Amino acid sequence: MTTTTQTTTTQTTTDNGVNVTALLGAKQALTDNPAAARFTWRASSEWLKGTHSRATVDGFFGFGAEQKHRAGYQFDTDHPEAFASEDNGVTPVEMLLVGLAGCLTAGIAAVAQHRKIQLRSVKATLEGGMDLRGILGACDKTRNGFDGIKVHYEIDADATADEIAALVAQSQKRSAVFDAIANPTDISVTSSKA
Amino acid sequence: MTTTTQTTTTQTTTDNGVNVTALLGAKQALTDNPAAARFTWRASSEWLKGTHSRATVDGFFGFGAEQKHRAGYQFDTDHPEAFASEDNGVTPVEMLLVGLAGCLTAGIAAVAQHRKIQLRSVKATLEGGMDLRGILGACDKTRNGFDGIKVHYEIDADATADEIAALVAQSQKRSAVFDAIANPTDISVTSSKA
Repeated sequence: MTTTTQTTTTQTTTDNGVNVTALLGAKQALTDNPAAARFTWRASSEWLKGTHSRATVDGFFGFGAEQKHRAGYQFDTDHPEAFASEDNGVTPVEMLLVGLAGCLTAGIAAVAQHRKIQLRSVKATLEGGMDLRGILGACDKTRNGFDGIKVHYEIDADATADEIAALVAQSQKRSAVFDAIANPTDISVTSSKA
Repeated sequence: MTTTTQTTTTQTTTDNGVNVTALLGAKQALTDNPAAARFTWRASSEWLKGTHSRATVDGFFGFGAEQKHRAGYQFDTDHPEAFASEDNGVTPVEMLLVGLAGCLTAGIAAVAQHRKIQLRSVKATLEGGMDLRGILGACDKTRNGFDGIKVHYEIDADATADEIAALVAQSQKRSAVFDAIANPTDISVTSSKA
């Protein structure tokens, strides 16, 4: 009796939609020309009523020139009805979680591409704890911001659980938003009378 | 010769649309019942393609119960075309500026209401500087996040420039987002294979 085993080798190309070649080119270009690496991100904001305001994001400075997004974006923030507000948008603190999710997820896709790991789905859940006595001034020992943030990723990919954990760790290591929230950032606030 | 001086007193009521009475009531209620002050803010996120992902915000836990926003919100983030991405949304770091603007502006309206200062317009411009060599891993000494954020408010109100500066300072003092970015916050990131 003869057993014939057929082996099919499929040539697969990892495609997470990230242009790693271009990113590595940018890394080299900015290493050679550090002045081009100076970016200024911007937003403007207008008060509407009560705790409701609207922010606009449309351009930034980088690579030595003014840059425009393909479209301008507007975001409303407000406080919830439980705070006697009108809930015309998410709360400002929830926007931080949105930014953190977007930054870590983009990093995971880029690192996976570089490591030739095909992603199928990347889902995150984020939770930020807060004791509201801080912002209400009800307790001097309570901070205003989050007392901690938990992020959990559930990732379907051609990789082991360890490889997935390493992907997430590398994204965290290079994340702008993770660093901006985890570590202190100097914020100067000035005002003038219109 | 007799000079008659007429004095007209106009009864004006400050209305910035913030219910300060309710906020002071909440402050008292949470002082009396600290457990109700425990909030958990949430977001979830799903990778779409490349550096493009979509976050959803719809509910949170607070005042001892699950709370829902009046509507669910979705936000797309992406990297710009200059980074060889598709620019399908603002960058995650710009979302931090959006959150900071919304938080400080809501605070200004609330403090102005409490101090009986009528606001007419409150406009903010925000800038966050960043050396891109950080996130690209091109320089070990460069941080990933902002190297500083500048916020400028231009406020039209029934107040002096000093009173306006004091309003902004008080909002900053009680701002959740200002604190979350200015001071370190613990972020734990975990993962599992789907």
